[in-house]
Amino acid sequence: VRIPQGYRFASAYAGIRKERKDDLALIVSDPPASAAAVFTTNRVQAAPLRVGRDHLARSGGRVRAVLVNAGNANCATRTGVQVARTCCRELARLLGAKATEIIPSSTGVIGVELDAGKITSKLPELLDRLAPDRLPDVADAIMTTDTVPKTAACEAALSRGVVRLAGVTKGAGMIHPNMATTLAFVMTDAAAAPTVLRRMLVRAVEQSYHRLSVDGDTSTNDTVLLLANGASGVGIGPRDRAAFQTALDELTADLARQIARDGEGARKLVTIEVEGARDDDAAARIARSIANSPLVKTAVAGGDPNWGRILVAAGYSGVDFDPAKVDVYLQGVKVCERGLAADFSEEEMEHKLGAAECAIRFILRGRGKGRARFWTCDLTEGYVHINADYRT
Amino acid sequence: VRIPQGYRFASAYAGIRKERKDDLALIVSDPPASAAAVFTTNRVQAAPLRVGRDHLARSGGRVRAVLVNAGNANCATRTGVQVARTCCRELARLLGAKATEIIPSSTGVIGVELDAGKITSKLPELLDRLAPDRLPDVADAIMTTDTVPKTAACEAALSRGVVRLAGVTKGAGMIHPNMATTLAFVMTDAAAAPTVLRRMLVRAVEQSYHRLSVDGDTSTNDTVLLLANGASGVGIGPRDRAAFQTALDELTADLARQIARDGEGARKLVTIEVEGARDDDAAARIARSIANSPLVKTAVAGGDPNWGRILVAAGYSGVDFDPAKVDVYLQGVKVCERGLAADFSEEEMEHKLGAAECAIRFILRGRGKGRARFWTCDLTEGYVHINADYRT
Repeated sequence: VRIPQGYRFASAYAGIRKERKDDLALIVSDPPASAAAVFTTNRVQAAPLRVGRDHLARSGGRVRAVLVNAGNANCATRTGVQVARTCCRELARLLGAKATEIIPSSTGVIGVELDAGKITSKLPELLDRLAPDRLPDVADAIMTTDTVPKTAACEAALSRGVVRLAGVTKGAGMIHPNMATTLAFVMTDAAAAPTVLRRMLVRAVEQSYHRLSVDGDTSTNDTVLLLANGASGVGIGPRDRAAFQTALDELTADLARQIARDGEGARKLVTIEVEGARDDDAAARIARSIANSPLVKTAVAGGDPNWGRILVAAGYSGVDFDPAKVDVYLQGVKVCERGLAADFSEEEMEHKLGAAECAIRFILRGRGKGRARFWTCDLTEGYVHINADYRT
Repeated sequence: VRIPQGYRFASAYAGIRKERKDDLALIVSDPPASAAAVFTTNRVQAAPLRVGRDHLARSGGRVRAVLVNAGNANCATRTGVQVARTCCRELARLLGAKATEIIPSSTGVIGVELDAGKITSKLPELLDRLAPDRLPDVADAIMTTDTVPKTAACEAALSRGVVRLAGVTKGAGMIHPNMATTLAFVMTDAAAAPTVLRRMLVRAVEQSYHRLSVDGDTSTNDTVLLLANGASGVGIGPRDRAAFQTALDELTADLARQIARDGEGARKLVTIEVEGARDDDAAARIARSIANSPLVKTAVAGGDPNWGRILVAAGYSGVDFDPAKVDVYLQGVKVCERGLAADFSEEEMEHKLGAAECAIRFILRGRGKGRARFWTCDLTEGYVHINADYRT
């Protein structure tokens, strides 16, 4: 699969993180792109989010470039807004764009002042390196506790031609629906107005980044940004919305799944499917409760078919249901029928639970049509190890 | 401190748990006691809770004995209600009481049938062993992953004399406000009507068991039961309510704190105090969010003064506040002032965070009078180790 047209990428080491590994990334859209974004719901919001939101409003959703750093979240900092603005202004000057056409983004430690000079002094080098094939460099540079870079790409066949989509994301801890220490930048060469993009992005995020949990912590920097620069010459017409939405949904779900799989300390990707709830929202609440339960997540780590913990977690989701109408499947095997132990082979289950992916299906018998899919990971000693030592 | 008059205790090994360690406990009140109880809010409720609630209603809040087993929660079991009823009926017969005057209680694994015969066959032995000084035996027998038994006792000077209170509790994992795999039995020799007890118990639990979190999981078996048998001959008159409430509050807070300190894998007791919120409920929501954050809990485990994670957790509590008006103290040292890093010695902080107790104070500057105190523990590799292997 090929990268959308009209985008160039670069990364560099700006000395923000101690480890000598690129910590600065740049995405440039050569025709300025229409843009839409979803930001964290945390009451504490990092400076770049405040600046980015302001820029999108003032530019009418027009974006020329995204400037991202790792190693410092630029959150709870005295000079945060000023630093983000300085970086945007300097990059705009070098690109011949407006400062409001630049979106700043940061991830890393909280409460430490970010030195704008480290970033601005690297901008010429970053611009020199810009190339259409360097999306993987961006994926590398924005990693924090991630163990693997995360990208995805696909195409959508619209009525007037094929458009491309590509995305890059990061995140491994502080991951929770609504949302995560997640940055995600999704690009397409389709053409669309910001308002159209916004509707489609909100819908895609609802089924991907809002269905994802690693540790239940919601960060101050979460951002999912969608850019559409029209470089393909193909617009997303009213008849194309469904096809583009499907492609966007699949791409964001792919990225979200990569984050769950790379959850801090995780050895297993866990997919939770809930069916038969009153409505989709009730299904999502049950799924989220199961996904966030440390007892379910440690049971998965231990390869223990402990359906009791799954039932218990659903029981405190706040959704009203009759436990006597619940079936639970693990790896496709029914382990709980009508709220009671089903007849299954412990030995077979232990073998199946050794796999790298764990599938949990929670089914409410009845007439409800509500369903939800949710991703998380197992909870291992590795999570504790990483987070007891991260800052120091 | 002495145990309330008119209570006798015993424990025995009934073969419910594999390990040969007492798993059956009995509390008998010789004058029948007035009783009030608070049960789990989980939608999935274990059979003994359903039977106990029914018995309290049918007896008008009159209790002669509490029969508790560890090793099996009697939850999500085909025969659960019948097993609990059989045990109560048999114990009532031996005691010359009514079956509805017996409260059954269970803790342990979910989804495994409990054999009533194992319990009923041990009842004569239990009755033979009953003695007023065997409360510690009850504390031992109801332990699951607890590493230490948990009891507390105190006295209250009422207008007509001194009454005694004593409590026994268990819990280490699946601990969450509203509530926990917690069993707590609090006894007093004061006299009071069940309705009076209920009001006081609800108030005490609100400030103790509902201010306690280990892992955020709420179990199916949580029970806090208060018995008042009047054996002291001293009633709780209208003028005595405040004095008795204070004693009850202190006793339940002491028990709750013991649970947090013994949290699965925990090395540190964490006390969180929030001040200056709009009201007590908002303060409690902020405190709970901090207490449940795996990132805060791992930072405490690592001795890392990571106030950023505390601010972040408060930020997703759902309570509206201005981050620029937040001060955070760790071990009495201001580490965050007005939402920014305060000037403190990292070296001194690291030393202070080595202590067995960690104090977090989160202060909203302003005119709010809302405050809350909350207990939790650090999150260590030990928690994962215990819970990845518990069932098998």
